[in-house]
Amino acid sequence: MPALVDHESRRQQIARIATTIICRVGLDAVTMRQIAAEAGFSTTIVTHYFANKKELLLYTYRSSALDAQARMGEVLALDPCDLQGSVEALLPLDPVRQGEWKVYFAFWQMALVDPDFAAEQRAQAENARAILRRVLEARVRAGCSPIALEAVDTVARRLLVQILGIAIHSLFDSRDWAENGQKAYLAEELAALGC
Amino acid sequence: MPALVDHESRRQQIARIATTIICRVGLDAVTMRQIAAEAGFSTTIVTHYFANKKELLLYTYRSSALDAQARMGEVLALDPCDLQGSVEALLPLDPVRQGEWKVYFAFWQMALVDPDFAAEQRAQAENARAILRRVLEARVRAGCSPIALEAVDTVARRLLVQILGIAIHSLFDSRDWAENGQKAYLAEELAALGC
Repeated sequence: MPALVDHESRRQQIARIATTIICRVGLDAVTMRQIAAEAGFSTTIVTHYFANKKELLLYTYRSSALDAQARMGEVLALDPCDLQGSVEALLPLDPVRQGEWKVYFAFWQMALVDPDFAAEQRAQAENARAILRRVLEARVRAGCSPIALEAVDTVARRLLVQILGIAIHSLFDSRDWAENGQKAYLAEELAALGC
Repeated sequence: MPALVDHESRRQQIARIATTIICRVGLDAVTMRQIAAEAGFSTTIVTHYFANKKELLLYTYRSSALDAQARMGEVLALDPCDLQGSVEALLPLDPVRQGEWKVYFAFWQMALVDPDFAAEQRAQAENARAILRRVLEARVRAGCSPIALEAVDTVARRLLVQILGIAIHSLFDSRDWAENGQKAYLAEELAALGC
């Protein structure tokens, strides 16, 4: 079905352009017209793929979150117990991942006032927590972690709180949080959590 | 100087209206015209107090952050060692503090692309960290905490990461994070940090 494939790859292309513009000027300044101009399309073509800015931002957010979860999956395919590596896959350690977090920020602001965005945010947070639970369970079963199986969900939630805090703090203070700074901080927190 | 007092109280009044609108519809939908309409002023009067939306948002963010720091100060005036209480003063435990965090979100999105907003964000984060440092030092000197004085700044930074994580997670999942949930989680984390 080449037409369908085309449709989806075109949507991804537009979402990537939206990400670039959000990272450069912020969500406030993003317009469908500007996205069309940078993609080399007419506004009519862009609105064929996304009816409006809301639909485009929902898709862009979901793509960013799924990309991040796919990176976690790649790490865990090599070693299902690699907690540090799978969390690093989420953190804003390079420009691509920093761009994802900037999209999250733009999106979260909308999630505070729009139920569709809020539902999507909850779904993606639950996805991430489920992946963290699976890594923790793998570690407990492999004897790599002393935490109890019943505590796995609580620890996954604490990890998610840590990840949000590290990501936000480091986005705003890169001097204090170079790439190695984030990794070292994470390693200490994982040790402190006993997982 | 009644004119000056008037000017400042008028600015505060406009900032409060901006906060209400940001909480209701998000930053994207806020216009100077809408703020003027809700304040019962003409747009010309509003632009007399704030030249543009950027200036208004900078002021609104700073007011929210200073209000939060003032609440910490009130807690610490009663007991300079009350770490749990002073952090609770920051957390989104009621609609007023949830509103402050919504303003932070709107603002952070701008801070990622605008150097003036980024500088203001860093200044307020440093203010909060300095207050946390002072509480921790008071606790160490009073024998309430076993951490070393040299470790106080590191622990203050870990606390700030925790506060950001708790605030964001709880804003998006209020079922999982009722007021008592945030307080209990914080108490456990403070115990885990040994402070």
